Amino acid sequence: MDDTADLLIEARWIVPVEPAGVTLEEHTVVLSGERILALLPRDEARRRHPAARTLALTEHVLFPGFVNLHAHAAMSLMRGIADDLPLMRWLQEAIWPTEGRHVSAAFVRDGTLLAAAEMLRGGTTTCNDMYFYPDAAADAFDQAGMRAVLGAVVLDFPTPYASGADDCLRKGLAARDRWRDHPRIGFTLAPHAPYTVSDDALQRVASLAAEIEVPIHIHIHETAQEIGDSLTQHGTRPLARLERLGLPGANFIGVHAVHLDATDIDLLAHHGCSVAHCPTSNMKLASGIAPVDALLKRGINVGLGTDGAASNNRLDMFTEMRHAALLAKVATLDATAVPAHTALRMATLNGAAALGMTDRIGSIEPGKLADLCAVRLGTPETLPCFDPVSHLVNVAGREHVTHVWVDGELRIEESKSLLHTSDRELLRLIAVWQTKLVT
Amino acid sequence: MDDTADLLIEARWIVPVEPAGVTLEEHTVVLSGERILALLPRDEARRRHPAARTLALTEHVLFPGFVNLHAHAAMSLMRGIADDLPLMRWLQEAIWPTEGRHVSAAFVRDGTLLAAAEMLRGGTTTCNDMYFYPDAAADAFDQAGMRAVLGAVVLDFPTPYASGADDCLRKGLAARDRWRDHPRIGFTLAPHAPYTVSDDALQRVASLAAEIEVPIHIHIHETAQEIGDSLTQHGTRPLARLERLGLPGANFIGVHAVHLDATDIDLLAHHGCSVAHCPTSNMKLASGIAPVDALLKRGINVGLGTDGAASNNRLDMFTEMRHAALLAKVATLDATAVPAHTALRMATLNGAAALGMTDRIGSIEPGKLADLCAVRLGTPETLPCFDPVSHLVNVAGREHVTHVWVDGELRIEESKSLLHTSDRELLRLIAVWQTKLVT
Repeated sequence: MDDTADLLIEARWIVPVEPAGVTLEEHTVVLSGERILALLPRDEARRRHPAARTLALTEHVLFPGFVNLHAHAAMSLMRGIADDLPLMRWLQEAIWPTEGRHVSAAFVRDGTLLAAAEMLRGGTTTCNDMYFYPDAAADAFDQAGMRAVLGAVVLDFPTPYASGADDCLRKGLAARDRWRDHPRIGFTLAPHAPYTVSDDALQRVASLAAEIEVPIHIHIHETAQEIGDSLTQHGTRPLARLERLGLPGANFIGVHAVHLDATDIDLLAHHGCSVAHCPTSNMKLASGIAPVDALLKRGINVGLGTDGAASNNRLDMFTEMRHAALLAKVATLDATAVPAHTALRMATLNGAAALGMTDRIGSIEPGKLADLCAVRLGTPETLPCFDPVSHLVNVAGREHVTHVWVDGELRIEESKSLLHTSDRELLRLIAVWQTKLVT
Repeated sequence: MDDTADLLIEARWIVPVEPAGVTLEEHTVVLSGERILALLPRDEARRRHPAARTLALTEHVLFPGFVNLHAHAAMSLMRGIADDLPLMRWLQEAIWPTEGRHVSAAFVRDGTLLAAAEMLRGGTTTCNDMYFYPDAAADAFDQAGMRAVLGAVVLDFPTPYASGADDCLRKGLAARDRWRDHPRIGFTLAPHAPYTVSDDALQRVASLAAEIEVPIHIHIHETAQEIGDSLTQHGTRPLARLERLGLPGANFIGVHAVHLDATDIDLLAHHGCSVAHCPTSNMKLASGIAPVDALLKRGINVGLGTDGAASNNRLDMFTEMRHAALLAKVATLDATAVPAHTALRMATLNGAAALGMTDRIGSIEPGKLADLCAVRLGTPETLPCFDPVSHLVNVAGREHVTHVWVDGELRIEESKSLLHTSDRELLRLIAVWQTKLVT
């Protein structure tokens, strides 16, 4: 018996993500402060921790909070400001002019507050962000009670935020120093993309990232044009150039990775890089289809990201899981590609691995931080339920999220909406059918 | 002044769908019984109809209820019963055995009740269904208060429902007779697919459909294998065979239409056929990507369908709109393909056109039936809103549906959830930014 336990979360189903492919029934997650103390069969948990509070989630599935591996949170303020345009017109006519006129620390703080509210409600507990004014974004994530990794963004050209690469790095490092001791805020170095950062600045990023031991967060191979331009200007594909400059490694998070040839995939695998797959953004901007099934089969760690709300237009990891699964299936013409457990793992533990945080988050294991999400699967649109993990990917949405914990603190709690009588009757009918169908 | 008006629905935005591409602000839909009497500027509507009740939807977009152009409603009972399997294993190991053991009139009635509840909550007011026991499905749709078009399904081989094609047609026509005078229930002839129905039965369907003036609802060209098999067995592609048997015409609804060559597209265009595009099902079953952008550019009428919940796994026209738009963009590498207004038109008026029902439903026009859906765009995840039609496709989900009318009767009404104080503050902040960004 351990008397430090203070909350027993009893759920109809628990999906710990590690070990892979497991769905537990009638189990309990035992919380002690901000940490997961144990994962036990329900009766055993009650016996061992009789003094702890109990929360019974009788029609819910509990799983690790999502790790959004690529976002530009503050861009939520530009949600839907321009759509259905080719990438360069979208950037040049809509996004960049708006940013040029409006981006400031206040823009970033408020936009990030909006994004954090949306993400938390949708079960995302950690966000790997990349935008101007990371210090202001950190303020917002901290205020929202979310976990976040802020990119110290690096761009060669002057912006309202900084005069160039050196200024970017100086400001990013200062922000990192300010938040150094915060339990929920971390940093990456985030050179925007190979085509917006010079060789010199990229080399500085590589050595600095090794020195201060942070991940490198960078857009790579998003469009075919980017690769053509690199061949013209540098004589190499972007990833090969980054390799020459010393960037790829186990701390490297390549975002998008849509246009990859065999050499690119070899390079990513050889260096133990991670990929942040953003299926919705890639579809919406018509960038192309990332070879996710091939990357996974090669053993490359692939997490999921929403990208910014200007190119998505939601920060919703449920739809990213679904789109990752659906797009991989139709791209390979193989319905077994990216099955549901894999999609959930990409959205949680793989994201944590990319950030070097598997010791703390990404799965429900004793000793990890209690970043958790509960989803109710008892409404007409989620019934019947034969496999809760399939339902998380294919059926449920963020509207079914009822509870979200970060560091063991409850951040989202929806009261259960009362069902109408006609619903009750219907639900009873469906329960009867469900029992019948599996016997 | 017209004193028969009994309800004025005032909405922040109204998207009538016809005329195309229009979004009205501060307008009112005037209802008289089950019909739309007028669509007027708000103040004019109030002046002309001072005695009518008023419903103010101050942060909502109002648009025509969705027409789900292809469903197997009762299969909702098999939602998620098997996933991530290749099509033939999915059918042979999961779906067909379960159907063989369980399908009955009661299964169809209860499953359709579940499906109707899901669809209505998600803003779908009309469903074009295809399944066994269409009479039982009609009962369920009627009870739910939804509009439905039931397929008199035709299969050559014996099933629990019927002994073969003749028995199918006999039962289907008897069901149609029973529901002949019902205002919300209609019928199609629904030969399952070219590969499950003989030449003789298909010819009988063609002549019968012409005689009793109903649409033909049939799966076509879903998989590459279906086409190869047809070439082997019949010496022609399936659509060419159907043409020889007299099926394609303005009343022809071809479902899926994934694998089309130039001749197939010519054939569909020449005969004025409609296509029911089911993007989620096509992705999930790894069938392939239908050439929707090419069909639309050729002037072919393309509506949207969910397919059954066993291969989707939701009956959600919001996600079908979104997937149609996203998939067309990434398939053509053109971000302008299937813009938001087009996706909404596919999900409403194009479905009505395929069913020959544009005189009654599919758009908000005086004289049409009041099948309407209201969506609230005032929550953190839907703000800011620069274009409500973009938001319907890219941002909102069925969880934002607040009101659904069928035949002028309110079927769904959610009370507005009270916002927390912190949300109010956030929403105020965002409103400030939104105003700033567009000035």
